[in-house]
Amino acid sequence: MSIPASHADLLEAVTLAHVATIGPAGEPQVNPVWFEWDGTHLCFSQTTGRQKYRNVGREPRVALSIVDPGNPYRYLEVRGRVVAVDDDPDNAFIDRQAQRYIDQERYPWHQPGDHRVVVRVLPERTSQMG
Amino acid sequence: MSIPASHADLLEAVTLAHVATIGPAGEPQVNPVWFEWDGTHLCFSQTTGRQKYRNVGREPRVALSIVDPGNPYRYLEVRGRVVAVDDDPDNAFIDRQAQRYIDQERYPWHQPGDHRVVVRVLPERTSQMG
Repeated sequence: MSIPASHADLLEAVTLAHVATIGPAGEPQVNPVWFEWDGTHLCFSQTTGRQKYRNVGREPRVALSIVDPGNPYRYLEVRGRVVAVDDDPDNAFIDRQAQRYIDQERYPWHQPGDHRVVVRVLPERTSQMG
Repeated sequence: MSIPASHADLLEAVTLAHVATIGPAGEPQVNPVWFEWDGTHLCFSQTTGRQKYRNVGREPRVALSIVDPGNPYRYLEVRGRVVAVDDDPDNAFIDRQAQRYIDQERYPWHQPGDHRVVVRVLPERTSQMG
């Protein structure tokens, strides 16, 4: 599918996306993430210790909500499917995100033992406003 | 349950919450809403024509993510259950929200024929960061 041209700029915005996943009992869960659009997928970083990582392994369907940082009445929701969970062994992805979001060369909250992955979401539907 | 004191202020923040619901095929959906904490429930307005209204009628479990408008690395996720969907026939609730969020006496985007309800979510679990 293609993202509506009217809201495609939001995929490049440096802002939080709120990602909804399905928890172990079938319940929705949601929290903010940094994200990056690679031209095909919405990508975000995750440590393998987190609930969200286990959630997308069990149920690949997710949704992300991105509000225009310059206009709170304009947003894009992307619903899709996790099609890849790639290792990020050198933290290349999360460090690039740190550069983008907080202008730091390295992600400052990395903990020894954290195993980072890149979750890639293929959009299947969108909804939007504004 | 009680909201952690460390993050209870976010229930009073004038900012968007991102509400995750379960769609008709069991898939997650998420989008931003204005919200109000009534001391017991997280409440938001909805028109009865919207997908989210149908979603919570089918599956009352929802989750809301609220980021501190002053600190993007501090957030509260509230997971809970829709325990009431009350009519808002005079638009009293949505008009109060308009006053709070955009300093207007009346909600400016009301459409003739819109039937507004107030969705009340009883928190059952939280997660938080920052």
